[in-house]
Amino acid sequence: MSVSLSDSCFLNIGICGYGTVGRGTHDLIVKNENTIARRLGDVRLKVTHIASRGLREGVSGVNKWSIDPIEVVNDPEVDILVETIGGLDAAFEVVKKALLVGKDVVTANKALIATHGNELLNLASKNGVRLLFESAVAGGIPILKSLREGLAANNINWLAGIINGTGNYILTEMGNRQRLFSDVLREAQKLGYAEADPSFDIEGTDAAHKLAIMASIAFGMPLAFNKTYIEGISSLELDDIKYASELGYCIKHLGIARLSERCVQMRVHPALVSLDELLASVDGVGNAVVVHADPVGSTLYSGPGAGAGATASAVVADLIDLARSPKPISHAHKVPSLGFSKLMTDYEILNITGIESEYYLRINVDDHVGVMANITSLLEKSGISIDAVIQKEKSNNCVQIVILTHICIERVLNSAIAEIESLESVRNPVVRIRVASFES
Amino acid sequence: MSVSLSDSCFLNIGICGYGTVGRGTHDLIVKNENTIARRLGDVRLKVTHIASRGLREGVSGVNKWSIDPIEVVNDPEVDILVETIGGLDAAFEVVKKALLVGKDVVTANKALIATHGNELLNLASKNGVRLLFESAVAGGIPILKSLREGLAANNINWLAGIINGTGNYILTEMGNRQRLFSDVLREAQKLGYAEADPSFDIEGTDAAHKLAIMASIAFGMPLAFNKTYIEGISSLELDDIKYASELGYCIKHLGIARLSERCVQMRVHPALVSLDELLASVDGVGNAVVVHADPVGSTLYSGPGAGAGATASAVVADLIDLARSPKPISHAHKVPSLGFSKLMTDYEILNITGIESEYYLRINVDDHVGVMANITSLLEKSGISIDAVIQKEKSNNCVQIVILTHICIERVLNSAIAEIESLESVRNPVVRIRVASFES
Repeated sequence: MSVSLSDSCFLNIGICGYGTVGRGTHDLIVKNENTIARRLGDVRLKVTHIASRGLREGVSGVNKWSIDPIEVVNDPEVDILVETIGGLDAAFEVVKKALLVGKDVVTANKALIATHGNELLNLASKNGVRLLFESAVAGGIPILKSLREGLAANNINWLAGIINGTGNYILTEMGNRQRLFSDVLREAQKLGYAEADPSFDIEGTDAAHKLAIMASIAFGMPLAFNKTYIEGISSLELDDIKYASELGYCIKHLGIARLSERCVQMRVHPALVSLDELLASVDGVGNAVVVHADPVGSTLYSGPGAGAGATASAVVADLIDLARSPKPISHAHKVPSLGFSKLMTDYEILNITGIESEYYLRINVDDHVGVMANITSLLEKSGISIDAVIQKEKSNNCVQIVILTHICIERVLNSAIAEIESLESVRNPVVRIRVASFES
Repeated sequence: MSVSLSDSCFLNIGICGYGTVGRGTHDLIVKNENTIARRLGDVRLKVTHIASRGLREGVSGVNKWSIDPIEVVNDPEVDILVETIGGLDAAFEVVKKALLVGKDVVTANKALIATHGNELLNLASKNGVRLLFESAVAGGIPILKSLREGLAANNINWLAGIINGTGNYILTEMGNRQRLFSDVLREAQKLGYAEADPSFDIEGTDAAHKLAIMASIAFGMPLAFNKTYIEGISSLELDDIKYASELGYCIKHLGIARLSERCVQMRVHPALVSLDELLASVDGVGNAVVVHADPVGSTLYSGPGAGAGATASAVVADLIDLARSPKPISHAHKVPSLGFSKLMTDYEILNITGIESEYYLRINVDDHVGVMANITSLLEKSGISIDAVIQKEKSNNCVQIVILTHICIERVLNSAIAEIESLESVRNPVVRIRVASFES
C-alpha cells in the first residue's frame, strides 16, 4: 500500500486476465471511483498492473501491462491480485503463487474454488493472507457474505438455488412459450446467454461448482465438489413442464444442499417447485437462492447471476472488504473464508439414492385395461403412496400416466421404477423428477 | 473481555429489556452456542447481565439481574450492550450512556436509530465504539449488511421495500380473499400480527423509520426520518385492489427511496406493483427489499421481517460481527455505520409533490353523457397522457372510471385532480395511488 501526497492510501490492484470480468472490474473501479472513495475514507483502489494476452485498446491510467500473469504476482507494488483468467491450470498457478508471496487474492473462478479451494484456503491461512470469491457464486447477489456473516447466528438447515442463468432462461422459455429445449438453446446461444459448448451450463457442472461452495460455507465443512450429485436439463420434455403446471408446479434446475444429523446432501438436478414459492417466480437469466436456517426461517436472495457489471460488483465488494480490514489479519478481518473457524471433516455426504423426496413420475403405457392398477400396486407394494395422478390419452394408442408420490427413499423408488419398466405395457423409460421441498 | 482457563475469550453481553426480542436474543445465544463458537473460533458470546422489569422465571446461567438498565451500562464486565427496551426515552438514555462509557452497542430499535441516529452515531465515533442495528430493518433479512458491504462497489439508484409485515398481511388478505380492511385488521390483531393500537404499522410510521435508515445507508447521508413522506393503507378499498388486478398489478405498501442528481426521494405509501415483479409475489407477513444499483442492476432480499427468532438472528449477527473485529477499531472494523466514511449533507430531500410517477386514479361519476370526455380533456390540458382506462357501471346511477396515467409530476396531477373534483358529475374525492417504477 503506498501513501500519496494527499494523505490517501492507495491499495494497488493487479488484474490477471482481461476478459469480460477482468475488464468489467477495471471499468467499475474507474467509473465508481468517487463512490468507492466516499465509502472507504482514506483508502483508494487503483489498478496498477494488468496481465492480458489481448489488446489494450482504449484502456488508460494503468502503469504496467504484462503478457505473463506471474509478472503481476511478482510486482512488489501490487497489494491485491484479482484472478479473472478463468479455467483451472493457469489460474491455479497464479493464485497459489500470489498467496505464497503474501498477496491477498480475489477471484471470480468458481471452478478453481470448488476444485482447489481447500488447498488454496489452507495456503492463504498459513501465509496470513485472504482469498475471497463472492463473485464466484450467483454473480451480483451477495449470497456468500449473507451465509458467512448475515446469517452467522443460525444453524443453516438447507439451501436451494437457481444458480445457472442459462439453464433458467431455457426452462423459463420452455415453460412460458411451450418451446422445445433444442430451439431455446439455439436462441440462447445467439443471444449470448449460452456458450458455443453449453454442456457446462445445461449439464449442471457450473451449478455444482457454486453449490459446493455454498454448502461448505453454510455448513462449515471442506469443499466437496467431487461428491456433488449432478443431473442436467437437456432431457427435459415439454410434456413434463405442462403436467407439472397442471399439478401446481414449475420445473427449475436447482442446486440443493441440506444438512441433517451430520449427513449432507449436495445435488443439482431439475426439480418441481410449487408455484406458491417465491423461487418459482424467478424467471429468465436471474439467479436466486433460498436459505432455510434456525431460527431465522427462510430468506431469499435474488438478482443477476452473470454479466460484466454484476460479477464486477461482487469482485469489487471483496476488494472493499479487504480495504476495510487491512493486514495484519490476526487483529482484523476474522471472517473465515468458509464461514467457520472450525470445519467439520466428518460429515457424511449422502449418496443420491439415500435421499428422501417426493417424486414426479411420467409413464408412457399402451392403452390396455389394468395397466394403471399394475403400476399403483407395484408402488404400493414398495410402500410408496400416491399424492396425485393424471392420465392423458396420446396418439398411437399410448396413454401417459403422471404420478406425484408422497415422500419416499430414492433407492426404494428406483427399485419400484425398475419393476414398472419391466411391465409389458410400459413403453419408454419412466421419467422421474424430484420435487423440491421447502419444509424445514 | 475475560479469558477463561480453556483459552477461550468470553465476550460478555448485557441485555437491556427482556421482552420478545431481548429474550429471543438470549435464547439464541444459548441454543446455538456450539455453532456460534465454531464460527468464532476462540471467542465465545456470553450473556452475563440482564436488565428487566419483569420476572426471571426459567432463565438460568446469567450472573446478574437488574431492574435498572443503567446498572448494565455501568457493569465493567459487560463488553457489549444489547438494547431491546424499545421506544425512545429510556432506550435513548441507555444507549447514549453505554456509548459514552466506551461500550459497543447493538440495538433492534428502529425508532431510536431513525430519530436519534445521527447524534448516537457521532457519539459512537467520538468514543471509538460501534453502534450496530441490522435487526432494526426487515428483521432477519441482512439488508443493511448487503447495502453497506455486499453492494459497496455500486452507486445505489433506488430501493423499494415491503418493510411492514402487518400491512403486507392485511393487503395480501384483502387481495386474495376480497376481504375488507377492517375485517382483516381485526383478525390480524387476534393472530398477534397487529398491535392493539395498529396505527404505527398501518399508517406507515414503522415503515418510514426503516426506510429512513435504509436510505441513509444506501446514499451515504445523515438520517432524515422527519423528511420522509408517509401515507398509510387504512383508506384502501377493495375496488381499487380489484381494478389494479385487472390492469396487471397488485397493491403493496412500499417504502421507496431514490437518489437522482443529488436529490433524494423518501416516501412510504400504497403503490401499484406490476405482477411481473418478484416483489408482487411477496405475500403475508413477509418483508422484501429490491435494490437497484449501478452496475449490479436489481437484487432482491426477502424473508421474515419480525418475530423473536428472525430479529434475534440479526441482533446476534451484529454481535458476531463485533466479535470478529475486536477493538481497537481504528485498525479493524472499518465498515462505517451508514456505509460511507464521508456523508453527503447537501442532498436535497424532494417534496412529495415534486416526484414523477405513473398514477392510478379512480373517479366515481354520475352516469351522464360526456363525463369521460370532460375528465380526459382536463388531463390532456395538463399534459398528462393516459395509459389505460376501465369504466364500470355501479349501482345508484354511478359509474367508476379508472385511469392509469403515464409519467407526470405529482404537483401537476394534483392540480388536474382538483379540477376534476370540481366537475359537477364527479361524486367523491378522486382516489389516487402511485404506481411503483422498477426502471433504473
